[in-house]
Amino acid sequence: MEPFVKFTGASGLMEQPDNVVIRKMSDMAAAYADSQKARQWIENGDPVVYEMLEALVPQAAGELMFCTTRINPGTVGREYFMTKGHYHEDPTTAEIYYTVSGRGILLAETKDRRHVALEMRKGSIIHVEPGWAHRTYNTGEEPLVFLAVYPANAGHDYRTIEQEGFAHTVVKGDNGPVVVKTSTLR
Amino acid sequence: MEPFVKFTGASGLMEQPDNVVIRKMSDMAAAYADSQKARQWIENGDPVVYEMLEALVPQAAGELMFCTTRINPGTVGREYFMTKGHYHEDPTTAEIYYTVSGRGILLAETKDRRHVALEMRKGSIIHVEPGWAHRTYNTGEEPLVFLAVYPANAGHDYRTIEQEGFAHTVVKGDNGPVVVKTSTLR
Repeated sequence: MEPFVKFTGASGLMEQPDNVVIRKMSDMAAAYADSQKARQWIENGDPVVYEMLEALVPQAAGELMFCTTRINPGTVGREYFMTKGHYHEDPTTAEIYYTVSGRGILLAETKDRRHVALEMRKGSIIHVEPGWAHRTYNTGEEPLVFLAVYPANAGHDYRTIEQEGFAHTVVKGDNGPVVVKTSTLR
Repeated sequence: MEPFVKFTGASGLMEQPDNVVIRKMSDMAAAYADSQKARQWIENGDPVVYEMLEALVPQAAGELMFCTTRINPGTVGREYFMTKGHYHEDPTTAEIYYTVSGRGILLAETKDRRHVALEMRKGSIIHVEPGWAHRTYNTGEEPLVFLAVYPANAGHDYRTIEQEGFAHTVVKGDNGPVVVKTSTLR
């Protein structure tokens, strides 16, 4: 392969991506604490929660994958629209997030349930340490758009999160987003 | 380490970097084909050509380093202000460039002198394939600001470029930037 460029349009999303992943509410309803509210969303049009536009590169150590993601604004009950969240299959691999537009929170958690919540706003650069699961929330009124870069051999373990969830989540409070224990919502 | 965030200001450059590298004309005069013009720049105030603001992370495989760079506008003769350029010491490692503002060109070259010139403008995402030397030029009238992400164990080989140079470079033409063979300028 040769070096290449992908341009992003006014939306901040990659033009001519090699792969597009669309996550509707029905693809991830179980991620939300309030399953009744999630079901209502599905019955009322099953909206796209987020989409990821990826560029493909060889799956080798040292190679870097990148994608642009847009999370739409919204809540399920008090819980903000979010990504599924994942660990990397290779626990030595980090990830970088650059926020293009919108407002959000990246929530990171270890297997022993330590957590960190980091603010996403235009120009913020987040370093996700190896070994931390991570999920992003749109806490604003506009789409949250960001670029993610990660080692091509990182691998994505979504299943652990689907089975065990995060111990914390981010909800709409009276004065903005608040991180709470997931157990308090169920 | 825990996950962390670095914010960028209106300039697009990292606030509170862990390390700052400033490259003045006198640090890299030999990079330019017109050594007399480079000397004139040094005698007339020795301007900053570019600065890199870095965040430090552990130097381990799987870890990702990132930095924001600003290249000031200007030319040395017809050659645009540019970075020193480097190979990675680990030839299996890639790099990603995200352009925050300004206009530029990323020039990439292999050891057997194949080259690729890629356009940098707001939102462009460049993937530099492992094994390709790379250098960026500010071809606009404003600062060129970009984010770079690379494996923390990549290592920077500047010396090969200092000794052998690039076979191609980017100059100001009548209708915008033009890639030429460096040998035609000396």
